[in-house]
Amino acid sequence: MAARPEQVLFQDRGETLDEEGFGMLGRMMVALGEIEGCREFAALIPEVRTNLVYARERAKGRGDVLAIDGRITVVGGLPRAAGKVKFGASSHMARLVIELRKKDPSVRAGIDFAWTPHLSAWLEQYCGEKGWVFSVIDRHGEPEEIREAEGASMPWKVAEAVRAAGGKVPKIFYETGAIGKEPVSVLVGRDPVEVAAQACEIARKYHGPG
Amino acid sequence: MAARPEQVLFQDRGETLDEEGFGMLGRMMVALGEIEGCREFAALIPEVRTNLVYARERAKGRGDVLAIDGRITVVGGLPRAAGKVKFGASSHMARLVIELRKKDPSVRAGIDFAWTPHLSAWLEQYCGEKGWVFSVIDRHGEPEEIREAEGASMPWKVAEAVRAAGGKVPKIFYETGAIGKEPVSVLVGRDPVEVAAQACEIARKYHGPG
Amino acid sequence: MAARPEQVLFQDRGETLDEEGFGMLGRMMVALGEIEGCREFAALIPEVRTNLVYARERAKGRGDVLAIDGRITVVGGLPRAAGKVKFGASSHMARLVIELRKKDPSVRAGIDFAWTPHLSAWLEQYCGEKGWVFSVIDRHGEPEEIREAEGASMPWKVAEAVRAAGGKVPKIFYETGAIGKEPVSVLVGRDPVEVAAQACEIARKYHGPG
Amino acid sequence: MAARPEQVLFQDRGETLDEEGFGMLGRMMVALGEIEGCREFAALIPEVRTNLVYARERAKGRGDVLAIDGRITVVGGLPRAAGKVKFGASSHMARLVIELRKKDPSVRAGIDFAWTPHLSAWLEQYCGEKGWVFSVIDRHGEPEEIREAEGASMPWKVAEAVRAAGGKVPKIFYETGAIGKEPVSVLVGRDPVEVAAQACEIARKYHGPG
Repeated sequence: MAARPEQVLFQDRGETLDEEGFGMLGRMMVALGEIEGCREFAALIPEVRTNLVYARERAKGRGDVLAIDGRITVVGGLPRAAGKVKFGASSHMARLVIELRKKDPSVRAGIDFAWTPHLSAWLEQYCGEKGWVFSVIDRHGEPEEIREAEGASMPWKVAEAVRAAGGKVPKIFYETGAIGKEPVSVLVGRDPVEVAAQACEIARKYHGPG
Repeated sequence: MAARPEQVLFQDRGETLDEEGFGMLGRMMVALGEIEGCREFAALIPEVRTNLVYARERAKGRGDVLAIDGRITVVGGLPRAAGKVKFGASSHMARLVIELRKKDPSVRAGIDFAWTPHLSAWLEQYCGEKGWVFSVIDRHGEPEEIREAEGASMPWKVAEAVRAAGGKVPKIFYETGAIGKEPVSVLVGRDPVEVAAQACEIARKYHGPG
Repeated sequence: MAARPEQVLFQDRGETLDEEGFGMLGRMMVALGEIEGCREFAALIPEVRTNLVYARERAKGRGDVLAIDGRITVVGGLPRAAGKVKFGASSHMARLVIELRKKDPSVRAGIDFAWTPHLSAWLEQYCGEKGWVFSVIDRHGEPEEIREAEGASMPWKVAEAVRAAGGKVPKIFYETGAIGKEPVSVLVGRDPVEVAAQACEIARKYHGPG
Repeated sequence: MAARPEQVLFQDRGETLDEEGFGMLGRMMVALGEIEGCREFAALIPEVRTNLVYARERAKGRGDVLAIDGRITVVGGLPRAAGKVKFGASSHMARLVIELRKKDPSVRAGIDFAWTPHLSAWLEQYCGEKGWVFSVIDRHGEPEEIREAEGASMPWKVAEAVRAAGGKVPKIFYETGAIGKEPVSVLVGRDPVEVAAQACEIARKYHGPG
């Protein structure tokens, strides 16, 4: 059989990719190229590494979210994707974006990066200049029963980020560290190309002169 | 500035990628994944390696054609792209597809692979079964003045492939070897996903039992 | 000039590599191949990823320690080195091995991997069977003035691991988690090939039947 | 079992690597790093790509020769190894070095690269300045019965290169093109680090000013 363009084998035999998927994959490749070319962003990659995710218009679960298998790490001083762009390659960031979309469906992409008190203060001011909503998820406030129930954390986290921003879905927010958990910053947006460009601009301005 | 999705930096700063480009890039990634997963195709990769190309709807030059930087080689027994998918990464195959499109604009993608007398006979029969046009570019017939003029060969080659097929644009054809030139087979089609699926099917049937 | 085998350019122009360095590099490549081929080890790679380090006989600083640039992450379900094997590519693990060698100079290599209470209990029993010393670095006991002084932590950590093992240098030990810090296990030995084989055996036995 | 450093699993389970192998692997990695960092060498990589090989002291067959799986191709304008350094990864270049060693056992490494009439004339003069023996394998002289017998070509080729150099083993030589065969240049030497440094010096001088 000749493959119909709209119904092709993808990754695992038997899976198919549709028109939306092709366009999403292309955008992710361009976004990733932007990140991999941004030396300043390497300094913002946390110990747990960075992921970049992009959810389908009607995403229900992590299988509907493109992400980078093995995440993005630093090699030779530059950001580098460890593996391929695949649907289902992220758990945490994928679920975060899916949960956020319940509050604001225009959010379809996100990237996580390092957090320090100094960066955080800088980001809060930067968001002010941009007119972006900035927020925080303070894990200290997380009820014990939620923290221990598998999968129950994400709705609480997103609700907390929105609550702390006075009811708005934030553009940038961070999760505080906890025992065994590194604190990270998160930036979200409409698509990965936009999100990558914004993350790189932040990296360049934060590390730049003045 | 926040990147507008339809006007983003691509590869070299300053270049932009449009909607057609995103979709094309996604299709190339899926097509490449199909090739890289096909162990039987590794046996069809020639010494000069394989390229897979995909031309824009209105392609004028090689800069309008996606291809694989460094081509596809064999690593650990499997086909493997050496570098990234980029516009402008192919010369020969890009010009071949652009020239073919002057005869049949539905052709936008192509892949080259090995040639042996045995494979050639098999392909000719396979094309017969599929109802596909099979042809040959016999370099012995190439006029000396064309062979030696830089860039003049391609129009002659394509004209020859069409002439040898009785005026039809072939689906599969080969170029005979010459002094210093390895003979190669070429398969063309509407998009790289179709072309990759067809090339892999050929590889599996040719190497398979019976 | 023809390069003299014992005085060659390495990585950065001007650096040289000697006989000890060639042999070390070869052992690291073999050790890394062992890790990359061990699917079970992928499940032991922590969020902060794994590094594998190998110190020169007379190592003084991290520049004398081979490690993997970008560390080892999980791609397609298998461990995968993000970048190349280079001198100076590790900070934490390199300093840990250098500090340990002050107590036991036979230690030249080390690898870090995940920690969970269940794995920890299993490792303690496994060490008992092997006749290996098992220990722990409990960060809760770390004096505040040490934690906050840049670079002062490592001597305290190694002293603590030895103290907690009754004065012996441990074969396997772990660092407890802390605010923003993931807990990790560490295995050390004479060379990376030995260390990789031992780490993979642990991964296979821990994840295996029974 | 704890792996004994001199008897470790390598690549395929069950294979072992010895002291000579570790040192050889380290030298190949350094040599490859030299090639991958030499932008000018990219212009000397032929259509059939470049391989770099290194034979054991007592090499009998291609399994005793290190080479680069998938060869070295050009990616982003720089030489790039497609796959890993492995014993047995080369056929043609491995057999060439093994055959040459029968005439001169000090030859253990080799690299192949492009050939043009202009480069060839330049190399002949360069060899003169260096006091190196330059030679040629003219395939036109190859007896038909040898060309067609599988594996019979290499002894004839090496004998021809030595004969054409007046009985000496050449440092640099080339094979003329033939129907379906690209002409290539070859440089041989004692080890891959030497050979890589010499090949890169040639590339830089040939492409350099004046």
